[in-house]
Amino acid sequence: MQAEEIGLKQIGIVGLGLMGGSLALALKKSGSECRFLGLDHNPKHCQEALDLGLVDEIVDSLDALSHCDIIVLTIPVDGIIAVAQQLKPANPNTTVIDFGSTKAKISASIPTTTRHFFVTAHPMTGTEKFGPTAALPDLYKGKVVVLCDIEKSGKVQQETAKALFQRLGMKMVFMGAEEHDRHAAFISHMPHALSFALANAVMRQEDPESIVALAGGGFKDMSRIAKSSPSMWEDIFRQNKTNLIDAIEAFEKELKMCRNMVENEEWKALNGWMQEANSLHDIL
Amino acid sequence: MQAEEIGLKQIGIVGLGLMGGSLALALKKSGSECRFLGLDHNPKHCQEALDLGLVDEIVDSLDALSHCDIIVLTIPVDGIIAVAQQLKPANPNTTVIDFGSTKAKISASIPTTTRHFFVTAHPMTGTEKFGPTAALPDLYKGKVVVLCDIEKSGKVQQETAKALFQRLGMKMVFMGAEEHDRHAAFISHMPHALSFALANAVMRQEDPESIVALAGGGFKDMSRIAKSSPSMWEDIFRQNKTNLIDAIEAFEKELKMCRNMVENEEWKALNGWMQEANSLHDIL
Repeated sequence: MQAEEIGLKQIGIVGLGLMGGSLALALKKSGSECRFLGLDHNPKHCQEALDLGLVDEIVDSLDALSHCDIIVLTIPVDGIIAVAQQLKPANPNTTVIDFGSTKAKISASIPTTTRHFFVTAHPMTGTEKFGPTAALPDLYKGKVVVLCDIEKSGKVQQETAKALFQRLGMKMVFMGAEEHDRHAAFISHMPHALSFALANAVMRQEDPESIVALAGGGFKDMSRIAKSSPSMWEDIFRQNKTNLIDAIEAFEKELKMCRNMVENEEWKALNGWMQEANSLHDIL
Repeated sequence: MQAEEIGLKQIGIVGLGLMGGSLALALKKSGSECRFLGLDHNPKHCQEALDLGLVDEIVDSLDALSHCDIIVLTIPVDGIIAVAQQLKPANPNTTVIDFGSTKAKISASIPTTTRHFFVTAHPMTGTEKFGPTAALPDLYKGKVVVLCDIEKSGKVQQETAKALFQRLGMKMVFMGAEEHDRHAAFISHMPHALSFALANAVMRQEDPESIVALAGGGFKDMSRIAKSSPSMWEDIFRQNKTNLIDAIEAFEKELKMCRNMVENEEWKALNGWMQEANSLHDIL
């Protein structure tokens, strides 16, 4: 299926926050004549999504989405696992795509009988904001999306998901769910832990206001994601526990090395260590 | 002295990089009819600064700047201490302003005989880029500048520095050099150590390219300052060693807390800890 063939379709969005709302905005902007059905347990978010024109209709159950062509799950990762147990598409060509930040537990938890309906994906984009009002039409454009264990999805579902991500202007990367989770721990989950820890280290000082009054761009960038949703990140940390701990350990080792060089005044070695860090930007 | 009284003046810039170059661009943009004399040990940077119109003339010694109205030191912090020993303004109203990221060692190192010429300042701005080509006309605009131990500067020098920062559109904050260094360790120096450590943690993995291929905005923000100049940061870490170690310890304690909660599956406590981190943004 080509991207242009996604014409007038019914798209169900479960979770009317930043990711789900941005998806609707992006598809509308791309000229897709889709009808969007939204489901969210938060009535305020439902009303906002309607008011902002993100969705055409609010439904009150997963059953009401069973005839959709595409159902996108943009809810916290524990919620995705719960929904995957209940979702039984009535249409054999329905494609269910989850946008969770972890993939191994989700991929493994989908019942065998419905596994072919699902495509497990992780769009590597977001902001620290959440809720329908945070939605941005260009959130996905030019960004990477990781498609995991794609061989477990049906042929129609594989093609539908690829066409959708192509229409969003995303770069598709394919890998196994386990590999994704190891990589995501380093590139996203552990950095979130660092940002939360940095914010708390400052907040516990005697006079955080006076410290924060001096914040320049570096601190603002490093602490931005410490604004992220605790309930969303609690689920991610739970689902990717082992990889997260490994990544935190790798980081702690480096920071300890830095601290030891400063304590022992090994300035030449410290300079070399910083030069190694500079080399990240040859590949980023 | 009012900002508008900084008319046709000679301004010496020692260090033709991001900070010095941006200062010249900002003053030119503000309509100041200043003549800029530049000094830098790097001949390539001297030529670039001339070619880019950052300075009007390159001089080859500190003596050639001794008649300037204002001399700005935008060089690494160890260099500032070395220059402060040699600089002997011939004009009693000359104001020497250093832009170093540490303040206590610099403030204490200036000879008593010339101390009144100096204003020790720290503009809380910058980017990870360096050299004259990195200069930006709006680098200082709307940002905070910390003026330290201002009572040790002469009256004329205090007024000149205030008028200069006012013209740059900066928000002035006054504090002692020791207090500045404690705050700067938390808001700038320790976050740089984290960013370098994060970059190295990823670079030491088996396949850093595959990890980095998944980088979203969060990782890019967190690793941006790991691109910073090692020689500049070596000096800063040396000069603010004790405060930096204290700040790293405070951070390590938080990260350990996070890791323990993940290991012990204390999800409710972890959620509360993240909520505390969120509160930073009430004051940032």
